[in-house]
Amino acid sequence: MFRLCKLCYSTAAQSIKSVKIKDVFKKGAINETKVGRVQGWVQSVRNHKRFCFIDISDGSLQTLQVVLPGNLMNKEIQNGASVSAVGKFVETEFNVNKIEMVCENIEVTGPCNPDEYPFLKHTPHEMQHLRSYPHLRMRRHSIMRGLRLRNQLEMRFHQYFQKHDFTHIHTPVITSSDCEGAGELFNVVAATDGNPTTENNEHSPNKMDSKDPNSNFFDKPAYLTVSGQMHLEACAMALGNVYTLNPAFRAEHGISRKHLSEFRMLEVEVAFVEDINYIMDLIEESIKYSIEEIELPVLQTFEDAFKDIPPNHSTAVENAKSKQYDRIPYSEALTILQNNSKRLKTPSPIWGGMILTLNKNHF
Amino acid sequence: MFRLCKLCYSTAAQSIKSVKIKDVFKKGAINETKVGRVQGWVQSVRNHKRFCFIDISDGSLQTLQVVLPGNLMNKEIQNGASVSAVGKFVETEFNVNKIEMVCENIEVTGPCNPDEYPFLKHTPHEMQHLRSYPHLRMRRHSIMRGLRLRNQLEMRFHQYFQKHDFTHIHTPVITSSDCEGAGELFNVVAATDGNPTTENNEHSPNKMDSKDPNSNFFDKPAYLTVSGQMHLEACAMALGNVYTLNPAFRAEHGISRKHLSEFRMLEVEVAFVEDINYIMDLIEESIKYSIEEIELPVLQTFEDAFKDIPPNHSTAVENAKSKQYDRIPYSEALTILQNNSKRLKTPSPIWGGMILTLNKNHF
Repeated sequence: MFRLCKLCYSTAAQSIKSVKIKDVFKKGAINETKVGRVQGWVQSVRNHKRFCFIDISDGSLQTLQVVLPGNLMNKEIQNGASVSAVGKFVETEFNVNKIEMVCENIEVTGPCNPDEYPFLKHTPHEMQHLRSYPHLRMRRHSIMRGLRLRNQLEMRFHQYFQKHDFTHIHTPVITSSDCEGAGELFNVVAATDGNPTTENNEHSPNKMDSKDPNSNFFDKPAYLTVSGQMHLEACAMALGNVYTLNPAFRAEHGISRKHLSEFRMLEVEVAFVEDINYIMDLIEESIKYSIEEIELPVLQTFEDAFKDIPPNHSTAVENAKSKQYDRIPYSEALTILQNNSKRLKTPSPIWGGMILTLNKNHF
Repeated sequence: MFRLCKLCYSTAAQSIKSVKIKDVFKKGAINETKVGRVQGWVQSVRNHKRFCFIDISDGSLQTLQVVLPGNLMNKEIQNGASVSAVGKFVETEFNVNKIEMVCENIEVTGPCNPDEYPFLKHTPHEMQHLRSYPHLRMRRHSIMRGLRLRNQLEMRFHQYFQKHDFTHIHTPVITSSDCEGAGELFNVVAATDGNPTTENNEHSPNKMDSKDPNSNFFDKPAYLTVSGQMHLEACAMALGNVYTLNPAFRAEHGISRKHLSEFRMLEVEVAFVEDINYIMDLIEESIKYSIEEIELPVLQTFEDAFKDIPPNHSTAVENAKSKQYDRIPYSEALTILQNNSKRLKTPSPIWGGMILTLNKNHF
């Protein structure tokens, strides 16, 4: 009933065209859309004597500043609330985005209790604080813009490989193979198997012996993939050029920058390669292409959102985009390490052995 | 040593530019590339008195017919072998692709034992036969072209949603939530947990009590996702428009067309929707867009490869692309079912209940 009343009340407002904030800031848009409706989430409220400012985000890169006359202000308009605001878009000198909305009507479609909402209006919270609210953290600029950047990077990688006639393969997540040695694998078992008290057991006519706790849904042990490499290799032997951007899993308990329990991995396989430079070109080009093609506002807002990005970050991105990547032959790399053997944390590497990641900063 | 000799032997041939078969068939290509090298896998060998024909596939949509003079023929050139052929591209009336290669030099880079290779030269094998060779089946036209079509469809869906300002989210595969009721879930446990004999246990300083077979890698039970819906909903409440094309899992023992144990699912969430027609438009448009944008050769070769596609398949694809999709209000659908109650396999549905999939063919 409450909802019905609300809907009736706001019919007039709803007949006004809904616009995305990103479109408000497009060149010339303000002349076309003098009046519009913006729907989003309140990012901040700043009260003044006779009016107040609220910043609304709708997932666009920018937020929109809305000027609310005193009579439209109500206590439901809080940080985190979802609102639908109708008003005039006007140019202004006092806001960094140069356009703001003078509100004529505002409706709170989803109220938010400020005592329970974990994010403060203007405080840039620590990442650790955001992490403890997985269902809300996307509302903060840093995470939101991280997700947007990730989306663009993914699409640019797809573009690059599609342009070069690679086929994207969905390599399987559940697999019986173990690409990189045991000890890091996650096991997959049906939740009902080995748990004979569950009601649903009756509905599984083909199931294994449920008394055996190691009984498997499949007829052999199944794991979460640690790499799609083997499946890709088989596909490369038919399709030539293939890649995947698949989830991969490692059951490593240690917390490090190396492996999360679940992560996405770009893997590429090419048939008939006779020159290792072809592969190195592919790596260098695909990275450069993807960075180059990121839309500048996406990159900038990402950098703005992360105040703790190290100062040399932009230089590193610029270098990755424009500089030629160093290529060191294996033997030469080994000689460098052997000459630096006193500074290494491991015994001096010998020809034929692996070059450990922890030694790679000596180049 | 053998590999070195081979490389030395073929240096002359390797200096000739390698071309993709798809580029050979491009308009005008034959005038530019009079001589070239093609690398791929033999799909068929047809012996004649003084020469033989072999069809080579390199993952392109078409195969290339190579004419081999008798003196170049050797017993290693078998169905399934990988070869590198150098020769002249010439126009011909006798082949469906209108261009063939007259071979001047051929090298078998990967021999294939015809007694062990499970696919016959010209026989279109049953799908069940192909399924039993997961590492080789991609070499058959049907599977290869299925993978290509799948790749294109995926990219078209991405294009559509990116154009409409949706953000692609990698929703997690490992989750502690259970979107759609228990009994269908896969459990995730670390392979070393509950298996105290494994050597690697020592290297896991933070691990749980390994004596308990139900001990978890995470501090609570973890499952494979059945749907990214919940995570997407949270993201939609910040980014507005989001989607995922994520793997999803169901531990259902029954074999049906409904759910595989592992499958990919396109899920979309939109914030601030006031009219259900917006969602229905989105579904209809995204499907139509994706089918329309599939390159015709990809669709045609797919249909050519599957000889058991029902005859009305093309019509169905055409309809999905061009006809307006029927939209039936819930109450109306219910009335239709109630009027047909005698033909239903279930009790007549009542208002507020679900409409079962098995009744949907009555509309």
